[in-house]
Amino acid sequence: MNLEDKIRVIEDFPKEGISFKDITTLLKDKKAFKYAIDSFAEILKDKNIDLVIGPEARGFMFGAPLAYALDAGFIPARKKGKLPSEVLGIEYGLEYGKDIIEIHKDAITNGARVVIIDDLLATGGTIEAVTKLVEELGGEVVSINFLIELTGLNGREKLKKYDVDSLIKYEF
Amino acid sequence: MNLEDKIRVIEDFPKEGISFKDITTLLKDKKAFKYAIDSFAEILKDKNIDLVIGPEARGFMFGAPLAYALDAGFIPARKKGKLPSEVLGIEYGLEYGKDIIEIHKDAITNGARVVIIDDLLATGGTIEAVTKLVEELGGEVVSINFLIELTGLNGREKLKKYDVDSLIKYEF
Repeated sequence: MNLEDKIRVIEDFPKEGISFKDITTLLKDKKAFKYAIDSFAEILKDKNIDLVIGPEARGFMFGAPLAYALDAGFIPARKKGKLPSEVLGIEYGLEYGKDIIEIHKDAITNGARVVIIDDLLATGGTIEAVTKLVEELGGEVVSINFLIELTGLNGREKLKKYDVDSLIKYEF
Repeated sequence: MNLEDKIRVIEDFPKEGISFKDITTLLKDKKAFKYAIDSFAEILKDKNIDLVIGPEARGFMFGAPLAYALDAGFIPARKKGKLPSEVLGIEYGLEYGKDIIEIHKDAITNGARVVIIDDLLATGGTIEAVTKLVEELGGEVVSINFLIELTGLNGREKLKKYDVDSLIKYEF
């Protein structure tokens, strides 16, 4: 299946000059959605994954079903203040300004084999921040997987220590 | 499995007097997470579900894996301004003030059999709003499923037209 055909590209959203990759057209297509999750699961099936982490909010839409498919646990990485128990947080740079992402301190047991998944790799800032949280809590980042990669933004460079895979590639 | 044992109750979050039900302890436990999703899937397996809708953001964590397990499509219901294409939105009441929830107009085909899923039924305002969106777009709400129900808040009354199920019940 050509998953790229299932993505709707919307120009100038959320602001002028951005060619937004809308994943909702893939999610609502049951065959495409299943194919995407099964493709991730196939890549990861022999890697003994304990935990799947997905960042808020689109990362939840791929991370939770992948955890289910791999028979792993799911960990949400959330924006500041959303998680109710003790958290570890990290500041990371956005295009304009900064943001903070958090996970629960007890989310990751020492030595846990972790995959991080998100819908889109752009500059890689969010995911780089998540790798630091995982490692500080004693987890091992075994793989990082994206539905879509914008290769022209070179996010892979930030994540070069890791095994990075994406199912769909766009230049921008 | 007693799923209630997997929920962490945190007092006075996000504010004093609220006994917050933390689902992340269930999500990270691979057996409990699988058991929860499989329990939903078992209830729904003979209902010919086309689409699963989950509201932002915890609804994504249960809705997306349930869609995968049922071989259905997944539709995110999102806060105002998050969805990139043409939306149908509706205002609904919160404890203090109002909010708007949206779905894409092309998310639901006429006659689609839809299940709505969320982590928690409290007053039922969000989910009642989502039922209206689904029906206005020509879908049929076949079932509404929650991980947790706070029975003392009587949200079920707002949803009495529908088939409502929850896996865990608390009085408050």
